[in-house]
Amino acid sequence: MSASRAGLFFDELAVGQSWHSARFSVTEEAIISFAFTWDPQPFHIDRIGAQNSVFGGLVASGLHTFMLSYRLYYDQGILAGTALAGLGVDDMRFQRPLRPGDTVRVETEILETRPTSKSDRGVVRLRLKTTNQDEAQIFGCIISALVARRVTAS
Amino acid sequence: MSASRAGLFFDELAVGQSWHSARFSVTEEAIISFAFTWDPQPFHIDRIGAQNSVFGGLVASGLHTFMLSYRLYYDQGILAGTALAGLGVDDMRFQRPLRPGDTVRVETEILETRPTSKSDRGVVRLRLKTTNQDEAQIFGCIISALVARRVTAS
Repeated sequence: MSASRAGLFFDELAVGQSWHSARFSVTEEAIISFAFTWDPQPFHIDRIGAQNSVFGGLVASGLHTFMLSYRLYYDQGILAGTALAGLGVDDMRFQRPLRPGDTVRVETEILETRPTSKSDRGVVRLRLKTTNQDEAQIFGCIISALVARRVTAS
Repeated sequence: MSASRAGLFFDELAVGQSWHSARFSVTEEAIISFAFTWDPQPFHIDRIGAQNSVFGGLVASGLHTFMLSYRLYYDQGILAGTALAGLGVDDMRFQRPLRPGDTVRVETEILETRPTSKSDRGVVRLRLKTTNQDEAQIFGCIISALVARRVTAS
């Protein structure tokens, strides 16, 4: 019995492939709870204080936007069981605030596939773009991961 | 009565300034709980499955390492009450795995300060480096934030 593997191997990934995630609605409760643990700045946890911020009201921590975006990407299962390790994240940008009541989804696109010196794995770079209910991009980043190659009989 | 402000204004920040955070010990429980919500891959939540991973055992999600690092940075209060908004994160790298029982701390260094067209704020770039109990770097990233300038009477 093998471990379940529903995702794509390195060999099955090609530059330009893209996928849409499910949508996710972000409540005020989620925004405040997350930020209270990880990033408790007034404009993330305090309705009143947030009115005087540059945002004019409560907004999600950028870390929360990243985590939600990652989870929506993850749940697509693109690399389920084939991702070996995360290497890094580049060009993370918070283009627009994520506000209570927003509904977001993530588009994932393969930017690059690069073999490594080891024949059983490769490096993949994926771009995540998160848009809100108005189709406006609120977040983007590029994730680099080590992905298993299909093992062939020698 | 003003909002509390214990952090530094843009004008008080200079390239090369650096600070050490408190240390934080990361339990297996914390690693598994975090990953179960945000990144439930076997090598983050399954002691047995993790043995067959490239890590040879349970390791924290890189997202968890980032979040912990951010929180340790945050608690230093460098920009407490003066940070206006996060702009982005660059060059995030997971150099070594974070394992159950590790104790980490974060070094923060000002990389760049850049005025903007608005006279009441500037852009600051900070490098975070996270090291473990062996002084080995496990994580690094560069955070860009909008920071308030000291308001002077005109």
